[in-house]
Amino acid sequence: MARVVEADGAVDVIDIDDPADSRLDDFRDLNSVDRRPDLPSGKGLVIAEGVLVVQRMLASRFAPRALLGTDRRLTELTPDLTGRQAPGVPYYRVSAEVMAEVVGFHLNRGVLAAAVRVPEPSVAELVSGARTIAVLEGVNDHENLGSIFRNGAGLGVDAVVFGSGCADPLYRRAVRVSMGHALLVPFARSNNWPADLVMLRERGFRLLAMTPDPRAEALSTAMATVRDQPLAVLVGAEGPGLSEQAMRASDLRVRIPMSRGTDSLNVATAAALAFYERTRLPE
Amino acid sequence: MARVVEADGAVDVIDIDDPADSRLDDFRDLNSVDRRPDLPSGKGLVIAEGVLVVQRMLASRFAPRALLGTDRRLTELTPDLTGRQAPGVPYYRVSAEVMAEVVGFHLNRGVLAAAVRVPEPSVAELVSGARTIAVLEGVNDHENLGSIFRNGAGLGVDAVVFGSGCADPLYRRAVRVSMGHALLVPFARSNNWPADLVMLRERGFRLLAMTPDPRAEALSTAMATVRDQPLAVLVGAEGPGLSEQAMRASDLRVRIPMSRGTDSLNVATAAALAFYERTRLPE
Repeated sequence: MARVVEADGAVDVIDIDDPADSRLDDFRDLNSVDRRPDLPSGKGLVIAEGVLVVQRMLASRFAPRALLGTDRRLTELTPDLTGRQAPGVPYYRVSAEVMAEVVGFHLNRGVLAAAVRVPEPSVAELVSGARTIAVLEGVNDHENLGSIFRNGAGLGVDAVVFGSGCADPLYRRAVRVSMGHALLVPFARSNNWPADLVMLRERGFRLLAMTPDPRAEALSTAMATVRDQPLAVLVGAEGPGLSEQAMRASDLRVRIPMSRGTDSLNVATAAALAFYERTRLPE
Repeated sequence: MARVVEADGAVDVIDIDDPADSRLDDFRDLNSVDRRPDLPSGKGLVIAEGVLVVQRMLASRFAPRALLGTDRRLTELTPDLTGRQAPGVPYYRVSAEVMAEVVGFHLNRGVLAAAVRVPEPSVAELVSGARTIAVLEGVNDHENLGSIFRNGAGLGVDAVVFGSGCADPLYRRAVRVSMGHALLVPFARSNNWPADLVMLRERGFRLLAMTPDPRAEALSTAMATVRDQPLAVLVGAEGPGLSEQAMRASDLRVRIPMSRGTDSLNVATAAALAFYERTRLPE
């Protein structure tokens, strides 16, 4: 065992040669074990993959309890690890071969970090002070969820609310596709759906429901009417879209004008266009 | 062998029980065989997966030479197949189990169509009469390529030009992610890159290069200056972005205003925002 740096708060670097070492259990067989870490039966761990996402985890509310990676990635991460973010946390330094055997596949990102989940705020707590939020219903695809976080982080979304039927935003794949923004953009899960939509309205949010319905208002026109108010952008899953209940609870039904008789855009792309229109400066 | 309908031009339905039947070779081991159908060594086939994408292939310039699928999908496709689109083309009707064995994995979309490639236009031919085109450089990810076609189809893009370093837009995964729009939106590959950018300018296109560079002009401002002119939106791969040569050949360097110090959006999302801004009506 050797400290990378002597400064207080650095990680403990621990070399491990044996893939069966139980200290690596947080990272074992990632593709087959713990596919539902959010369930009571799951481990509850949040896994960050790759230097960039691990850096974002270190900057987030999810404090890693262990890291697994190659020496090369340790070097790349050292500036991030030598702060107060990772006091005394073990970095299990392994070869790429041992890493592949533990994880169950070759991971060319070369480093993983594992954190335990933290308590989530209520929807009311989450949205306090927010100007723009995304509200998701039935978005059960981890890639779409991750993309919505990435797009939201770049395009001014303050928080994300999950209605019914959404996938776990802290699942490894969602975190990876989000480029780590699922760890940074605050979110909450509604326990009272769709009634929480009424609560959002009572707190001053205008509710804008995205739909491919040609009778809906065009995005730019609709967004101009809510420019100075707190806004919730509601999106549903590709295919079914938002439920009738969610549509009815909304203030505005909004469509993206589309060409060529295309059915719809990907849900994360549609959300990005709404977020963009929200932040777009008036001409 | 039995005709679905007696009308001229219907498919020939052929029941096959033996997964080794050589008539199914177009569809064999899709995940491992012919990963580069665009190379001279490749089969050159274009594969459409699922009812919606097969329908779009039938409406495209790629005429299927064979289909493989279950009885259920045949029923769903019959209205599309009983036209002039598929005269005498075989529909190999198989069980889901035989299909999985031929294809090499379980395909719950239940139907595939195979078409040969058709000659591609030159860039000059392609852009004749176009008002908005997308120009891609180094976009070597099939999912991103497919998403760009899907977004472009929905948001008013007339044609797509491939500069150097792009993946094959007719590869199965790209076609699937595009929802079949890779078969419908015309495209051409540049054989003279980046010199073709000069040719585009000479033909009256304004070249707008997307970049995360904070010194670039904001998207809405830049787009307003080219509103009445033919436009080429240039995007590069995530990470490296556009080459210096492509940047120098452009008229405008344009960024999407972003929050939270995020590095960049996904390339297909960035392209979608540019396409959207292009079609967005002035307030």
